Amino acid sequence: MSDEFARIARYFAPLAATFPGAYGLTDDAASFGLAPGEQAVITTDAVVAGVHFIGDEAPGLIARKALRVNLSDLAAKGARPLGYTLAAVLPQAIDDAWLEAFSAGLAADQAEFGIPLIGGDTVATPGPLTLSITALGAVTGAMVRRAGARPGDRIYVSGTIGDAALGLAALRGRLAHLGAVERAFLADRYQLPRPRLALGRALAPHASAALDVSDGLVGDLGHIAACSGVAAIIEQERVPVSAAAATALAADPVARQAVLAGGDDYELLFTASQEKHDIIVRLASAAATP
Amino acid sequence: MSDEFARIARYFAPLAATFPGAYGLTDDAASFGLAPGEQAVITTDAVVAGVHFIGDEAPGLIARKALRVNLSDLAAKGARPLGYTLAAVLPQAIDDAWLEAFSAGLAADQAEFGIPLIGGDTVATPGPLTLSITALGAVTGAMVRRAGARPGDRIYVSGTIGDAALGLAALRGRLAHLGAVERAFLADRYQLPRPRLALGRALAPHASAALDVSDGLVGDLGHIAACSGVAAIIEQERVPVSAAAATALAADPVARQAVLAGGDDYELLFTASQEKHDIIVRLASAAATP
Repeated sequence: MSDEFARIARYFAPLAATFPGAYGLTDDAASFGLAPGEQAVITTDAVVAGVHFIGDEAPGLIARKALRVNLSDLAAKGARPLGYTLAAVLPQAIDDAWLEAFSAGLAADQAEFGIPLIGGDTVATPGPLTLSITALGAVTGAMVRRAGARPGDRIYVSGTIGDAALGLAALRGRLAHLGAVERAFLADRYQLPRPRLALGRALAPHASAALDVSDGLVGDLGHIAACSGVAAIIEQERVPVSAAAATALAADPVARQAVLAGGDDYELLFTASQEKHDIIVRLASAAATP
Repeated sequence: MSDEFARIARYFAPLAATFPGAYGLTDDAASFGLAPGEQAVITTDAVVAGVHFIGDEAPGLIARKALRVNLSDLAAKGARPLGYTLAAVLPQAIDDAWLEAFSAGLAADQAEFGIPLIGGDTVATPGPLTLSITALGAVTGAMVRRAGARPGDRIYVSGTIGDAALGLAALRGRLAHLGAVERAFLADRYQLPRPRLALGRALAPHASAALDVSDGLVGDLGHIAACSGVAAIIEQERVPVSAAAATALAADPVARQAVLAGGDDYELLFTASQEKHDIIVRLASAAATP
């Protein structure tokens, strides 16, 4: 128990230093307010070693991906990040060097995305490393929903689709026909998602529906369609792919399946009415996001 | 994956039905607002089978304790419950019958304490059952802190102290000198904490510092003292104990250690200035809490 307090003070409390309502992680709870007209947005995602990641990745990378999958939800909902809580469920083998690298990864992403740690829990487990993060954000007015797409809306994605699924294949030793640089690019896309926070906030007033691509393009567009009560058409040749993914597709058309149905891209998938097209192109350009 | 969606729809979505901002658990995130002048309070606690509970308890009991340890934090901070998210990290052996009993336990406590499920995540694990709950509440004005106790303040606890530690001993086959009724009373105190939400809210304007007793009376009062920069004196004969605990203490003075240092009582521990004494006694009486 005192070991737990010492670890919290050493590795986690510094991550909460910028947020007064976190009380240095010395209280039972954190507190925060909202500006007038704002709503809070809350999302929880858990990851388990051996299920959602391999487990022998660099601790900082594990930390950053666990945080980023939550940030990606905030991005899709158009929210400004407020803070996050972390339940760190740690096997005995986790030592101080591991925690130091893990917290350094969180610190790097906190600085990049402007979100502080505000609370959490550290517990022991006889099982695998498990991380549950709850991220909080704020939106002005209403949150962008999955429901809301209408007949005639265009369908957009940010960035490129399918890289993460191909990256996982590359990490598993497949895609040997690709060059090392392409395999590394794809693996990085799997291991370190880029939550589209700036674009998500800019799009919020214009998107009719939005989510982040975690289950795969086909599955996630299906979620929007089902929640919105509409049908959706994907023209597969218009799905944007990276140069590395294009090379993989040229060499092996079966890779198309990974592009369309693979998950973990954490790009924004959203719909908007036709007349919003020009402003969406402008906002994407301003956010430097294809 | 479709199995996950079916389980969420069947066992968890009904728990979110009363909270419009949970969107039936079909969206990436939930949203909620605060009344003018309110602050949100957020707390996260995780429990692991084999560490925080035995694992073969009734699923409903596991659910309720996992929720209640979080509600107890909201109570200590004087917060009105808003909602909670649940990361349910489930071993393969968890079947539908288990989930049905588990969600029924949550439903019972949601009704009793007025807090809906608003989001979460359901993932598989090769390890033990792990539950991470993040509870949200709201306070008018500022949250009651651990810091804030002053020299001369009185120290109060709700209910009785030490029952849970003795209950754990009873569950482990000790305390054979007690009667079956007393052992069952103490075991229940360990297995099913009573978060003091009504009393906590009533006390919030009057307590100088507060927390819930989870680490044990001595340790937790130490937290208040350290955060507040004061010393605290416990007169051990004035620590309120139940009749069952008194019987245990009479038979074996070593049980005093469990009463003073054992954890898991989830009673309120708070301080207040001398002149607040009469109103605190009145508020406790109004909340029917010793």
